[in-house]
Amino acid sequence: MAPIVTSRSSSLSAARSSAVRSVRSARGVARSSRSSPRVSAATTIAPASTELATQCINAIRFLAIDGVEKANSGHPGLPMGCAPMSFILWDEVMKFNPKNPDWFNRDRFVLSAGHGSMLIYSMLHLTGYDSVAKEDLMSFRQLDSKTPGHPENFMTAGCEVTTGPLGQGICNAVGLALAEAHLAARFNKPGCEVVDHYTYCIMGDGCNMEGVSGEAASLAGHWGLGKLIVFYDDNKISIDGHTDISFTEDVSARYAAYGWHTQHVEDGNTDLEGIRKAIEEAKKVTDKPSLIKVSTIIGYGSPNKADSHDVHGAALGPDEVAATRANLNWNYSEFEVPEEVSGQMDKSEKGAALEAEWEATLAKYEKEFPEDAKVFKQLISRELPAGWEKCLPTYTSEDKGIATRLHSQTMLNALCEVLPGFIGGSADLAPSNMTLMKAHGDFQKDSPAERNLRFGVREHGMGAICNGIALHNSGLIPYCATFFIFTDYMRGAMRVAALSEAGVIHVMTHDSIGLGEDGPTHQPIEHLASFRCMPNMLVFRPCDGNETAGAYKVAVERRNMPSTLALSRQGMPNMDTTSIAGVEKGAYVVYGVAAGESCDVILIGTGSEVEMCVDAAKELEGEGKKVRVVSMPCVELFEEQSADYKKSVIDPSVSAIVSCEAASSFGWGAYSNAHVGIDGFGASAPAPALYKKFGITVEAVVAAAKSL
Amino acid sequence: MAPIVTSRSSSLSAARSSAVRSVRSARGVARSSRSSPRVSAATTIAPASTELATQCINAIRFLAIDGVEKANSGHPGLPMGCAPMSFILWDEVMKFNPKNPDWFNRDRFVLSAGHGSMLIYSMLHLTGYDSVAKEDLMSFRQLDSKTPGHPENFMTAGCEVTTGPLGQGICNAVGLALAEAHLAARFNKPGCEVVDHYTYCIMGDGCNMEGVSGEAASLAGHWGLGKLIVFYDDNKISIDGHTDISFTEDVSARYAAYGWHTQHVEDGNTDLEGIRKAIEEAKKVTDKPSLIKVSTIIGYGSPNKADSHDVHGAALGPDEVAATRANLNWNYSEFEVPEEVSGQMDKSEKGAALEAEWEATLAKYEKEFPEDAKVFKQLISRELPAGWEKCLPTYTSEDKGIATRLHSQTMLNALCEVLPGFIGGSADLAPSNMTLMKAHGDFQKDSPAERNLRFGVREHGMGAICNGIALHNSGLIPYCATFFIFTDYMRGAMRVAALSEAGVIHVMTHDSIGLGEDGPTHQPIEHLASFRCMPNMLVFRPCDGNETAGAYKVAVERRNMPSTLALSRQGMPNMDTTSIAGVEKGAYVVYGVAAGESCDVILIGTGSEVEMCVDAAKELEGEGKKVRVVSMPCVELFEEQSADYKKSVIDPSVSAIVSCEAASSFGWGAYSNAHVGIDGFGASAPAPALYKKFGITVEAVVAAAKSL
Repeated sequence: MAPIVTSRSSSLSAARSSAVRSVRSARGVARSSRSSPRVSAATTIAPASTELATQCINAIRFLAIDGVEKANSGHPGLPMGCAPMSFILWDEVMKFNPKNPDWFNRDRFVLSAGHGSMLIYSMLHLTGYDSVAKEDLMSFRQLDSKTPGHPENFMTAGCEVTTGPLGQGICNAVGLALAEAHLAARFNKPGCEVVDHYTYCIMGDGCNMEGVSGEAASLAGHWGLGKLIVFYDDNKISIDGHTDISFTEDVSARYAAYGWHTQHVEDGNTDLEGIRKAIEEAKKVTDKPSLIKVSTIIGYGSPNKADSHDVHGAALGPDEVAATRANLNWNYSEFEVPEEVSGQMDKSEKGAALEAEWEATLAKYEKEFPEDAKVFKQLISRELPAGWEKCLPTYTSEDKGIATRLHSQTMLNALCEVLPGFIGGSADLAPSNMTLMKAHGDFQKDSPAERNLRFGVREHGMGAICNGIALHNSGLIPYCATFFIFTDYMRGAMRVAALSEAGVIHVMTHDSIGLGEDGPTHQPIEHLASFRCMPNMLVFRPCDGNETAGAYKVAVERRNMPSTLALSRQGMPNMDTTSIAGVEKGAYVVYGVAAGESCDVILIGTGSEVEMCVDAAKELEGEGKKVRVVSMPCVELFEEQSADYKKSVIDPSVSAIVSCEAASSFGWGAYSNAHVGIDGFGASAPAPALYKKFGITVEAVVAAAKSL
Repeated sequence: MAPIVTSRSSSLSAARSSAVRSVRSARGVARSSRSSPRVSAATTIAPASTELATQCINAIRFLAIDGVEKANSGHPGLPMGCAPMSFILWDEVMKFNPKNPDWFNRDRFVLSAGHGSMLIYSMLHLTGYDSVAKEDLMSFRQLDSKTPGHPENFMTAGCEVTTGPLGQGICNAVGLALAEAHLAARFNKPGCEVVDHYTYCIMGDGCNMEGVSGEAASLAGHWGLGKLIVFYDDNKISIDGHTDISFTEDVSARYAAYGWHTQHVEDGNTDLEGIRKAIEEAKKVTDKPSLIKVSTIIGYGSPNKADSHDVHGAALGPDEVAATRANLNWNYSEFEVPEEVSGQMDKSEKGAALEAEWEATLAKYEKEFPEDAKVFKQLISRELPAGWEKCLPTYTSEDKGIATRLHSQTMLNALCEVLPGFIGGSADLAPSNMTLMKAHGDFQKDSPAERNLRFGVREHGMGAICNGIALHNSGLIPYCATFFIFTDYMRGAMRVAALSEAGVIHVMTHDSIGLGEDGPTHQPIEHLASFRCMPNMLVFRPCDGNETAGAYKVAVERRNMPSTLALSRQGMPNMDTTSIAGVEKGAYVVYGVAAGESCDVILIGTGSEVEMCVDAAKELEGEGKKVRVVSMPCVELFEEQSADYKKSVIDPSVSAIVSCEAASSFGWGAYSNAHVGIDGFGASAPAPALYKKFGITVEAVVAAAKSL
């Protein structure tokens, strides 16, 4: 699951087709104004003849049919229905270079209905991506293939994001479009638009039923993301049958209410001209995202299964495959692509030309705007500026103790000065999460160059949008924030961040019963444990300023791994022994017997409970015990350390190892013999009363140590 | 946190006010047709004079102001703005008996914007509920008070559900309205409507931003829940400031797109007649839920803080409280309620009369429809029918091994025959989750008496709606289903189920990498651990038919505790040694050395890995080891057992204890010395290939045991 590294083509010598050349002059006309409709390279190319187009569309359909058939697993219906819109999009409209899938200025495509993955694999194959060869299509859904069951960005170059959990992809698309709008506003100059691409998305009924898509769509409308164009594959079939059993709302009216431009292509199966015109119209509307509802027949072409849920999620079966071949007059063998189809759809040359054109623009930009170019190139290189980490402050016990959410505010404001890609915000809790970057304004429709994002009360959409921003892979480092408890709302997106290696920083404040009066609906108990068991997710619970700095240092560095920071509402003292280096080791000694030396008692604390452990240690020392206090701000980083280091800090042969964390004991058995925590729900009361009620006290830690 | 038990008044002797008497004859006219507008008891009562109404409204405002001020914590702004609509609702419209908060036929009220909890506490106090006395208002947000930071049904009689996490309440309201519509359709007879109440809800901007509310609203529109009336408190302020920074969509148009009837009261601060009329109009529309957008000023009356986020979530401060008293001409001391206000708002007499009226209807129903009455009374008693559990089948190794999702289907179909309150469905995965009750049709707008719910792809809304159904407290036992992985989408609702003691049964299939080709987006890894650490949630992973029966037995019995069943896609054999009684103990011996006897090796398995442990045990026995295999379908139930029992099954002094579960090792350290599982993400391939790739094999279990 290592990230895909695709070589970045720097060749400018690729032959250019005359079609592409004619485009360049056409582009020159439109480029001067951002608000005027773009004339893209693709739209001016004469489209394929209807007959050839139909061949191409059927080629897409049959690659999907054959792939699913061979695997005897998968979803043929969506690719069969969406082949026409996909053909127009990839063949005529979209700007990309199949030989350099990472080309910065490519249009982004997201298949939000990820179960139709054979559609995207077919498109990648037909348009000339090396990542999906015929053999890959033939090993669909097999172990270690490039063609897994759902599109995975870390497996297949050309897949921008990881989809499958419905609704995520459209939110990612909003994030991708936001990234483009933001960078375009920051870097483009008149006549020199180095950032200039569209984001396209295909979503289905399922995506539209999920609330998360509504959250992101509402924001996209609010932000006026004019270069986001979404196809709604309206095929009226879901797994349970016809959508009229559960989904009878007017989707287009809903999107109009969100502030979107909406259109309807009534026959998405054959009306190619209708699809073309809808895309053109969508591009003309530059201040609103566009929804193009395309009514299609799921499994189009299958004489006995089309327009039924039988074709949604299972292979057609050999008889129906044969019947579909006959029905669509497709006289080719399995996985066979007719030459004229390859000739039409391969976009290697066109793509190289488009990239070369952009490289020329970039060269001009570098010449005319060298300072901006320097920042821009640094940013899109995805390398962090040298010495960035020096902005992180250090603290001693002389510094006044404050809440770690306040330290977090300090870090965010320091980081945004040195990291030009730092961007983020909160789900309507900025004054509580302390997440505003004071040097920056709000990213809004009329101020897209700004860096504070206002997500409203939309945690799930926020997380999924941030995944899109991260996977724009343009050096943007997104953070997002809410109360720690409301990770329950956005866990779907956080898991996809972990799986898809999106380095989103989740700033989660009010991390325990220490938040007090808001009560058990707002008090996390099991949340630390629930993220510690999630693969590829770093969970930090810092105990003071130095540890908060350390958490941010690692979170920023790990661009392929999301982080979750659990931060306090209440104050806690700064310690002299805490450090960034300590955090980088996950757990380390902050008081008492040094690492590797023998002791009677080890007390392990995190966050606000480290202070409690130190106080307990002092009491135990008064009784003649040799005590070590370990701060453990990040379990995952500790697990990365050598066995020797781990043993030197937490020696399992010590009989009295007590952990203390105002949270569930679940999982602590791996490190301690006793845990002072809370395994039930919290309560509504001032924080000190709660700590006492639930027995998270110095006395309890001392008693637990003595009992061992 | 024990459930509140309120005495169920059976007294019919309460004095009836003449107002109520006059109502009864009015009701008789309208009662004959379900589709005609209801004339409720309340609407025909002459409303308070404008002056008295203003006094009452200000009383609500100042109780909220004073409560927050005394706690120096809380949210005064919403109660101050929503006091007028709340007054009309509780004083004139709603049907309830404050002296019997559990009266079955009461109208339900949900404050979805739960942070405004002082509003509901003020209403309960003013209308005569015993649960909120003046002292309770004075101990707002203090330890063990009846007035916690957010409304909690398990703490305060009169609070129907637990709100605070935004968006949950409106979904609960949809569930409450669904429960009413379903029971009304099943039990009401012409002229004898024993089920007949409205569900009212106040939601704010935050609730409307959350995607989960959109999911439930779309379903409410689809289902045509005409007796659901929702006020949208449009105050344009959220924590980050004015809603125009993140929320500029047309909410009413969106609800209209969902199929709702929508209205707008432009001045919700003073136009009481407008509020009255809107409610009347809403009641006239019987085939659509109603949204009444009420534009209000947050913190109405506060001269310096109204209409700003300063008044949202903090005490006004003594100066501003004084200024507000002066501004609204409120010459009463803290927590003082003028006599004329108490006289107007106390609904004890009216409530008793309403309940008595209903009791008379019920008596008539019993006489005329004795069979129906028997079922109805049994249902709303919330007691399970005697001997219900006998419907659960048992299996032996002779029975063909199948997937536990198929056993689950058997159980659901058996249970719905004996439990008249069994109702539920899936989030568009019925054919995969195997959750259809074959003897029943779909609950739809034109068939509300049916019991299969079709939630569409709306997991979070599904969970929250089921919480509402459960907390209707009318004997309905809701279940809901999706793939186990998508609990990530609905965790917010599942946690509220656990906290609010809603006995929802979560049927979660495709429980591990065993689902195969769909790949890591669909394969749960950390999910078992993530729910085992959640308080008050039972997690079951049965290994065969007997254990699936056992899981359902406990899940149905525990009406104050939600359950999550993790069920397999793939088949597994039935065992002779498994049993319902074993499941009830959480973990028990299914092979080898009996409980309490000495052994060399203990192998602990769950679900599909129990078979693997038995095979490993046989291999180890071949090498002369004494081995015990423990099946552990429910960790939480095991933890409820005596220390002796626990030791007899899993004796920690045995040095070789190996657990095996195709899932995260997190948390297993509490029981085993080694774990055979998977701590990274899964992959897309046929299941057997995945088990091999990730090393979850008999050989691995044997090797782990030997290494210890």
